[in-house]
Amino acid sequence: MTQYISDRQAADLLKKADNILLLAHQYPDGDTLGSNFALCLALRSMGKRVRVLCGDPIPEKYDYMTAEVPMPDFEPEYICALDVADPKLLGPALQAEYGHRVDLCIDHHSTNVGYATHSCVDASCAAAAMVILRIIRLMGVVLTPAIATCIYTGIATDSGCFKYSNADAEAHRMAADCMDVGVPYEMINRVNFDMKSRARIELERLALDGMEFHHDGRVAMMTITNEMVAKSGAKENDMEGLPPIPRQIEGVWVGITLRQKADGNYKISVRTGTHADASAICVLLGGGGHNRAAGCAVDGTLEEAKAAVLKAAEEALPRLITG
Amino acid sequence: MTQYISDRQAADLLKKADNILLLAHQYPDGDTLGSNFALCLALRSMGKRVRVLCGDPIPEKYDYMTAEVPMPDFEPEYICALDVADPKLLGPALQAEYGHRVDLCIDHHSTNVGYATHSCVDASCAAAAMVILRIIRLMGVVLTPAIATCIYTGIATDSGCFKYSNADAEAHRMAADCMDVGVPYEMINRVNFDMKSRARIELERLALDGMEFHHDGRVAMMTITNEMVAKSGAKENDMEGLPPIPRQIEGVWVGITLRQKADGNYKISVRTGTHADASAICVLLGGGGHNRAAGCAVDGTLEEAKAAVLKAAEEALPRLITG
Repeated sequence: MTQYISDRQAADLLKKADNILLLAHQYPDGDTLGSNFALCLALRSMGKRVRVLCGDPIPEKYDYMTAEVPMPDFEPEYICALDVADPKLLGPALQAEYGHRVDLCIDHHSTNVGYATHSCVDASCAAAAMVILRIIRLMGVVLTPAIATCIYTGIATDSGCFKYSNADAEAHRMAADCMDVGVPYEMINRVNFDMKSRARIELERLALDGMEFHHDGRVAMMTITNEMVAKSGAKENDMEGLPPIPRQIEGVWVGITLRQKADGNYKISVRTGTHADASAICVLLGGGGHNRAAGCAVDGTLEEAKAAVLKAAEEALPRLITG
Repeated sequence: MTQYISDRQAADLLKKADNILLLAHQYPDGDTLGSNFALCLALRSMGKRVRVLCGDPIPEKYDYMTAEVPMPDFEPEYICALDVADPKLLGPALQAEYGHRVDLCIDHHSTNVGYATHSCVDASCAAAAMVILRIIRLMGVVLTPAIATCIYTGIATDSGCFKYSNADAEAHRMAADCMDVGVPYEMINRVNFDMKSRARIELERLALDGMEFHHDGRVAMMTITNEMVAKSGAKENDMEGLPPIPRQIEGVWVGITLRQKADGNYKISVRTGTHADASAICVLLGGGGHNRAAGCAVDGTLEEAKAAVLKAAEEALPRLITG
């Protein structure tokens, strides 16, 4: 059983700690990296030894946050997981080594399983980086351009560049506070939201070709197979930002993206608007996430995966079915 | 010759005025409509008679701002153009009737030609709606949810939902201030940035098929012909948001979109990053706009239009030409 604590209690625990290991989730995104590197820089400015670990390689596009931050080796005394809702999401290696002994988890997922000794979770925040910024302020650390850049990245990437429902007034104000210090936001927004390789554009075209609609167009399903990825020439860093596409289509309540994994099975992303709860759908398939964006995995053929997620959507949302 | 005035002077002029006609630009977008309807509601709350006029029909997607605002008929005594950089942009009918007698122009285009008696222009603002919000505050009007919704729409639409370089800290803070009052931003963002018809998606596929690259991929050119529009089934309101696409491709400095007009000639939109000035390119073809987003028109065949804009890009940006 975890003990849920406030931002201030989390700040107090961190102030007392040293030789701190920070953990990011696998398939690292802007929020887990922004949270980890912001807190790392903040704690170092207080004279502490800190290291960030991630089970997967960090995509090159985040170099502007991560490339110039050296990672010293030391025996960790205090372990924190940031933006990690479940120790499984650390990836197999880090889960085995650290999953059972996380001292503090700082997160914004309502589906957080409460695995750490202390958990500081605010599901009203658009990004874990917003909780981190509050804690950094409570520790009395002055915001530097490097820290502000990490926090801005977390907020912007987890809110779809302030487009999603979670982009509330606090998200905008925190972004503005970061920008006051000096954030290269034009570059960050271009790298994260505006830049597509030619291979990515080809992959989008292939995926759009195979878009399927169900229940009077209320459900849209897009598939990304390994064959399509190979044909387009897309690399791993071309794959982000695909899941929102099906829900962008007019009239769609539930947008589903099935992405084939290396082992042939499917990773499923669900995006919804005000009409549906994405998390409720994914929970039925052993996954989880947020109200508007959630995920799960289904083993089997493409047809089996499609049938399973469609059935889950119908169960979670009986209003979908229009006689 | 216009007289350039401050926000406060503009507020003072408006406080003294009555029977006010507000003018939006043709092909109305979220900023010209948000600015006009916000100022209209603010001035009415001060007991004034105000009307908004636009030379083109207002797209349905803006109904949430405009549908429930009645437009009384009266003889205008004071004429203001908002977000209108040049009287030509009022469209032929409104230009003929009002273009020569605009009392006050409130705008954020650096290319504003200074045609009104008084001009209140701040080119540092992401949206004309930001200048309007300052003026509304200076007039002492309390922000209502309806006014805040209009201002938010102007800021969000002209900043690409806070993605473009103009989305600075002030833009975020003004958005947050509007949200405090009560803005249905989830709906607004979905309507303006996230919703695409199936016809639009088909049109994007056709346009991507014909994408052309020049100068080592630094220039990308996308064409939308009348034939492609007919084939996709796209309607006028499916056509927004196409110009940013070419510049989204990795390595592109100058993204050009050529859209065929009803008369067969071409309307050209140019988008650039930090490497190039879009306005400098379009000015060479008799157009104008902002640093990162500008437009012009070229008469002739598609090949002639492409050659003309490519030549203008090369002239404005000799660095494009490698070896």
